Amino acid sequence: MTQLAKARKNEATPEMEAIAQAEGVELSKLIAGVASGRVVIPANRMRPRENSIGIGAGLSIKVNANIGTSRDYADIENELAKLEAALEAGANSVMDLSTGGDLATIRQQLIEACPVVFGTVPIYEAATEVTEAGGKVYDMKVSDMLAAVQRHAQAGVDFVTLHVGVTRAVLGELESHPRVCGIVSRGGAFLAAWMQYHGQENPLFVHFDELLDIAREFDVTLSLGDGLRPGAIADAGDSAQVHETVVISELARRAYEADVQVMVEGPGHVPLHLIQSQIETIKALTGGAPLYVLGPLVTDVAPGYDHITSAIGGALAAHFGADFLCYVTPIEHLGLPSPQDVHDGVIAARIAAHAADVARGLKSAEEWDLNFSRRRRARDWPGQLALAIDPERARKLRARAAPRDASVCSMCGEYCVFKVFPTQS
Amino acid sequence: MTQLAKARKNEATPEMEAIAQAEGVELSKLIAGVASGRVVIPANRMRPRENSIGIGAGLSIKVNANIGTSRDYADIENELAKLEAALEAGANSVMDLSTGGDLATIRQQLIEACPVVFGTVPIYEAATEVTEAGGKVYDMKVSDMLAAVQRHAQAGVDFVTLHVGVTRAVLGELESHPRVCGIVSRGGAFLAAWMQYHGQENPLFVHFDELLDIAREFDVTLSLGDGLRPGAIADAGDSAQVHETVVISELARRAYEADVQVMVEGPGHVPLHLIQSQIETIKALTGGAPLYVLGPLVTDVAPGYDHITSAIGGALAAHFGADFLCYVTPIEHLGLPSPQDVHDGVIAARIAAHAADVARGLKSAEEWDLNFSRRRRARDWPGQLALAIDPERARKLRARAAPRDASVCSMCGEYCVFKVFPTQS
Repeated sequence: MTQLAKARKNEATPEMEAIAQAEGVELSKLIAGVASGRVVIPANRMRPRENSIGIGAGLSIKVNANIGTSRDYADIENELAKLEAALEAGANSVMDLSTGGDLATIRQQLIEACPVVFGTVPIYEAATEVTEAGGKVYDMKVSDMLAAVQRHAQAGVDFVTLHVGVTRAVLGELESHPRVCGIVSRGGAFLAAWMQYHGQENPLFVHFDELLDIAREFDVTLSLGDGLRPGAIADAGDSAQVHETVVISELARRAYEADVQVMVEGPGHVPLHLIQSQIETIKALTGGAPLYVLGPLVTDVAPGYDHITSAIGGALAAHFGADFLCYVTPIEHLGLPSPQDVHDGVIAARIAAHAADVARGLKSAEEWDLNFSRRRRARDWPGQLALAIDPERARKLRARAAPRDASVCSMCGEYCVFKVFPTQS
Repeated sequence: MTQLAKARKNEATPEMEAIAQAEGVELSKLIAGVASGRVVIPANRMRPRENSIGIGAGLSIKVNANIGTSRDYADIENELAKLEAALEAGANSVMDLSTGGDLATIRQQLIEACPVVFGTVPIYEAATEVTEAGGKVYDMKVSDMLAAVQRHAQAGVDFVTLHVGVTRAVLGELESHPRVCGIVSRGGAFLAAWMQYHGQENPLFVHFDELLDIAREFDVTLSLGDGLRPGAIADAGDSAQVHETVVISELARRAYEADVQVMVEGPGHVPLHLIQSQIETIKALTGGAPLYVLGPLVTDVAPGYDHITSAIGGALAAHFGADFLCYVTPIEHLGLPSPQDVHDGVIAARIAAHAADVARGLKSAEEWDLNFSRRRRARDWPGQLALAIDPERARKLRARAAPRDASVCSMCGEYCVFKVFPTQS
């Protein structure tokens, strides 16, 4: 039985108990959240774990880090270093998006080294198999796609992204309403290329019931990917995006009814003023299914700083209802991340998540700020730095511009406001 | 006559003409904006300039970079390097907040090297004079404070921050409603210490009419500082902050009636969910005076990353009506910035400003994204990188993770979405 099936019977699992305690929520409320489909607990039953997380209503916002090889850089040692960087920076989950090298071995090594929730996009494996064999992406067989999902489930993957909403009708929207940047989802582009070549419907859409059977057997959480997410702010909110969301919402309902845990994925590149309406529309359509967003990036023009453009959008999206933020690193749109990029991406996404946790009234989040600021006011430097979101970086910067008087910082020195006017209550 | 006095007579100045052309707005609308007090053009008549800017309604959002020495680090060469870094990164104005070394000489050298709008906080000079002479901040004489403003005006400073709203009544709020972090504005703390010691009202508040006379003579724009801005998110929106805003609003009205250009300053540390109401409240109270915000930082816990916490808050604040963003650097709360910190702070603030420009429907901002994304879709790498907000950093990151095939990037390589599914319109 999946976590969802048990919750529906009002049964608590060890994962639910651990999560309720870690998040300080009542177990009965958490069970009700899972039962209603508004919380998922990605936890493949093939993999023992210590760090279960819940994603969704009433819980803190979670952060995912994408790692993985490319054909240009397929070094497992580097990927293990990126995994380590993601964990050290506090990622709640990691996705292996490898497309270069021996994918099965890479996945196996990463999953064994990963104590947190682990996700993948199985279609990447199906696509790279045929191209490595000299074919084209559209040479994938339908059976290869389903087999990849099955293999990932057996390998212990906790959640898989499936671009099930890229239907022929949805692709038709691109013709009647042309886009600036077309399809920017890799999985979405693979499926669209296949559909165009074969003139057939999306196999993941057609065989959705078989995918549900696999997911239910292993309790793999399905993440319904937004293959049509906007890749330019000019494309945000167009008919292809919204039409796909409608399709995904219906498939999410079918998954839920089949006792399969399911979340939905959201944009993408979205200008600031459209984030609220997009998030609320998705939440309304899906009846509050956990929402996993990539960004959103609030502008297209800042390669080198897309951890910042996505922190702006992610904070706002989470404030309005997104539950799970996929990080974006500084090197997004430019190349494959380094461990440092991974670190910087996770911290930026955690800042966005925390800012939204505060805005959503999460008690533990407010307390973190309160405790931090009390130490700031007291000029308790060791205390402040220890509580910082990245103590090592804070210490490094303070040391770089070291003050003469260790009770203040070198910006204000003796003019520190807490020294100049300390007597106020 | 000030820019405001001329606008009221419907006279165009050379600055107005240059700004109207640079921003693509009708001259008559710009004049009307200045005449209504909803736009300011900081342009001290003692200083020739080429780069005039307008700040306020209907114009693009501007970015300020704070530089300046401290007692711990008082090297003019370093400050000139920070000025250069700010200009290179695209700051629209620079404030010299020096508190260490020979302040008059430092200001003179910086202002001579600065082609953009230049601002200061004269009370810093009055305070450091007495402490350098062995006294305490509260030993400042009222005449010293006014003389500092006069000197800065004569030196060509375009705008000065005056913490006129720190009145006894406002400070009284701190006693009845204690704060986590008290006063965090340096100028506000200096004045509060003076007021507490002498048991008298804020001299800048008492002598406001004399300050208006100085400002009018040189056409110095007044920036009414928020000495009570919250320095912890727990303090945001408290009675001290709101009471001070009420006082400032009335003083802004008096400045406007005296033909003195005026803007108001805003928070500070503010959680995400309170930004909209704070900005709209300030705008309503001041009748739409240009609003200059420091941050807002959406969390207290991220020293080392406060360029990101303030980019999140700044984007949102500007979306809801703030006109002028003061950058925050990564080393804020930890020490005096380096040129690299200045660069990183300016870029983060420019990202926030641009995201809000897009959200506010600024045509040129939307076109920048559109042109950029068209080049992304076309895999026109030189074109993309040239249009990036920081071309040098984008080039450096791309080179660091160089692709084998120069038509793509090393993240996806041949699986680039624009190669895999290129035929869509």
